[in-house]
Amino acid sequence: MICTVTLNASIDKAYRISGGLEVGTVMRVLDCTDTAGGKGLNAARAVATCGERVVATGFVGGNNGRLLCELLQRDGIPEDFVRVTAETRCCVNVLDGNETSTEFLEPGREVSAAEFARMRERLLSLAAEASVVTIDGSVPHGVSPDDYAGLVEGVRNMGTPCILDTSGVLLERGVKAHPTMVKPNTDEIGQILGRKVTSMSEGAEAAAELHEGGVEQVVVSLGGDGAIMACDEGVFRGIAPKIEVVNPVGSGDTMVGAFAVAMERGMTKPEQLRFAMGCASANCLSKYTGHFNMKDAKRLAEGTRVERID
Amino acid sequence: MICTVTLNASIDKAYRISGGLEVGTVMRVLDCTDTAGGKGLNAARAVATCGERVVATGFVGGNNGRLLCELLQRDGIPEDFVRVTAETRCCVNVLDGNETSTEFLEPGREVSAAEFARMRERLLSLAAEASVVTIDGSVPHGVSPDDYAGLVEGVRNMGTPCILDTSGVLLERGVKAHPTMVKPNTDEIGQILGRKVTSMSEGAEAAAELHEGGVEQVVVSLGGDGAIMACDEGVFRGIAPKIEVVNPVGSGDTMVGAFAVAMERGMTKPEQLRFAMGCASANCLSKYTGHFNMKDAKRLAEGTRVERID
Repeated sequence: MICTVTLNASIDKAYRISGGLEVGTVMRVLDCTDTAGGKGLNAARAVATCGERVVATGFVGGNNGRLLCELLQRDGIPEDFVRVTAETRCCVNVLDGNETSTEFLEPGREVSAAEFARMRERLLSLAAEASVVTIDGSVPHGVSPDDYAGLVEGVRNMGTPCILDTSGVLLERGVKAHPTMVKPNTDEIGQILGRKVTSMSEGAEAAAELHEGGVEQVVVSLGGDGAIMACDEGVFRGIAPKIEVVNPVGSGDTMVGAFAVAMERGMTKPEQLRFAMGCASANCLSKYTGHFNMKDAKRLAEGTRVERID
Repeated sequence: MICTVTLNASIDKAYRISGGLEVGTVMRVLDCTDTAGGKGLNAARAVATCGERVVATGFVGGNNGRLLCELLQRDGIPEDFVRVTAETRCCVNVLDGNETSTEFLEPGREVSAAEFARMRERLLSLAAEASVVTIDGSVPHGVSPDDYAGLVEGVRNMGTPCILDTSGVLLERGVKAHPTMVKPNTDEIGQILGRKVTSMSEGAEAAAELHEGGVEQVVVSLGGDGAIMACDEGVFRGIAPKIEVVNPVGSGDTMVGAFAVAMERGMTKPEQLRFAMGCASANCLSKYTGHFNMKDAKRLAEGTRVERID
């Protein structure tokens, strides 16, 4: 079983409006679609799509929390969320007639120290059964970067592989807790190392440096240019087949879920990269965020070249 | 007891963002305030602020529906909503750092014929006890203008005074059901009569015409220029004292709630206008939509001049 952690889950609302978004006016929304949102939930959907057992945990609260659990049930994702007092947040994505997307991300509402303690306990009990844990995304008010890193540490101390997928100070502090894997993009890894990372070769260097710092597997996503992976077996580059991108949103989260599946299945590191890149590319072919088709993923994985570059 | 009807209630979410709203970007919301929204609920709050008993009805559904009822309870507004299958909608108001407001109104989700029949039955049973009923705002999918006008007719047939406060085709069709009172602005009354209504004198003419068509009391709001009222007693103009407007949103709804209170208390028509204008002006002094202070309202009503102009 794979466990995904989403501390700052949200109800993602997609608003479609007919014309362009005009600031300072009242706009009628044509239709509105609610999804159980958050990076960890996209990763959980990827695990389920791959055909493996998954349990999603994190915080949910209030009426939006109930709605989130209903949406997960509809998606066939088993959950073991910690119920908290604060309402689960919403995030609104306005898709206008000019095909422009404008997003409004609510902050996660306050979680108490006692509620966080319950979360930690819940996660450690899930990690005891899980083959891989992924800790994904941001945190609500009341959860510090140290709290967050403490979850990584707790999972690692139990000997369970832990993938960390976050950004900013949470990632900076989190890598110090030695997660099994991190998956930054070039901006994110550049921020950790305090220098600009723009090219493929700079990405490879940065990944190797972070790996030497104590992260078993460092994957740097380069968008359309593929991905770099640094691990004990060497530094590898994965090049996916060229595709017509429909919607790339959630493909990084899909990659994390697919890596967890690949680890659980005991694939070699280069095979893990190939498999995860196939799923991430397939996600770009679907208009729905964090959704893909396993047939596309297999075909794209077969077309993905993984070569050792160091 | 006064009964307010809000068929298309919503969770109104106020998003505060720091800079200007930039189309095509991701914006972090600083804070988010949820309110039980809809014109009828603003009217209900006004009735409660005036110190009279009120019951709010309409449709609520799903998790947002539960949240809406919780928010009403917090506001001290008793409710007798019809529970439906469809989720209650949200409306998002983005208040940016340039003090600009950009609104996104979700459409109300589908209500079935059977659910509407339950609403009608519930309303007629409430109208049997109520001294005044107000029917406010728009309708969700599945409710036609004829259905809406049928509610006005049902209440009127029981002999209970009914205030209708809506716009567009709902107002056009609704006035034919002879509500006791309507409260259009100049645009709205112009649309019903098929001509432009821009000046005070055109407003007075239009109000008189609609009154002759069978609406006992026609109040045309002129914003800062006050209001016109046509009724059997004559045509009157109300002029409120000049104030420093903080937030005018919801003052029309407040006016409707205050008119209901004034009718219940058996005030003369000119006194009703003075009282309602005092409350509506007081609403402009509060930064919260549909909230006012009774002390301000009394003072402003005393300063309001009501003169017969025809």
